[in-house]
Amino acid sequence: MKKSLGAKTILYPTPVLVIGTYDKEDRPNVMTAACGGICCSSPPCVAVALRKATYTYGNIVLQGGFTINIPSEQHVSYTDYFGMVSGKRTDKFAATALTPIKSDLVNAPYIKEFPFVLECKLIQKIELGLHTQFIGEIIKTSLRRG
Amino acid sequence: MKKSLGAKTILYPTPVLVIGTYDKEDRPNVMTAACGGICCSSPPCVAVALRKATYTYGNIVLQGGFTINIPSEQHVSYTDYFGMVSGKRTDKFAATALTPIKSDLVNAPYIKEFPFVLECKLIQKIELGLHTQFIGEIIKTSLRRG
Repeated sequence: MKKSLGAKTILYPTPVLVIGTYDKEDRPNVMTAACGGICCSSPPCVAVALRKATYTYGNIVLQGGFTINIPSEQHVSYTDYFGMVSGKRTDKFAATALTPIKSDLVNAPYIKEFPFVLECKLIQKIELGLHTQFIGEIIKTSLRRG
Repeated sequence: MKKSLGAKTILYPTPVLVIGTYDKEDRPNVMTAACGGICCSSPPCVAVALRKATYTYGNIVLQGGFTINIPSEQHVSYTDYFGMVSGKRTDKFAATALTPIKSDLVNAPYIKEFPFVLECKLIQKIELGLHTQFIGEIIKTSLRRG
């Protein structure tokens, strides 16, 4: 016998994904996304679901690329902050003193201090409802040294 | 300075998803999928990426629905087995003595013994490459009692 919880979006664990983009004036922004993960092995692709209301949504559409930055334990408070404050009104790099580095491969910044980065080229945009799913081809994954 | 690992599909953690479907003769099948997760809050949706070669791929296309069964620790060996053997040649329920229960809401079976189940209606099928992403609207989530 099962107890119904209704139609809930409960499914764990989930990765912690900090999405790096440039806005229309090439200002770097980052946001923490709740939903995403690997979705194809060839070409190597990752999915990230965002609401249209986010600043990052418009940036990805405009620039055609984004990075996914994976925090370490020491970056927990930044990661929480990046999910609560909008880049529309706040320069989150200035606020945290983290360092945006321009990707050589896609028009998006990554966070220098974070240990693991995926550089992604937008290949599909799929409307689902409140969320839109962006499919990025993974052009490069890299690890911070030292 | 970052060390490139190339274009790899590395992103953790990932949930463990056991997909339940019926084949064209209404035989229940389950497979463990490597990629998937919540992708929209309204309507509540989940994504699962599968290769066309899997038996489950054809079953989802045919039946328009599937379940996602979340194992507990005691189901680890079943979950491993479900990801290694194809339902084309093997009745995985008979082989494991687990119990398929027909969903009241979608044309798919769930595993009675697993603690958490999502019942999903197929709403989109997205071709990505080697993998196809199925988007399921979550019609019901339920927990096993006792």
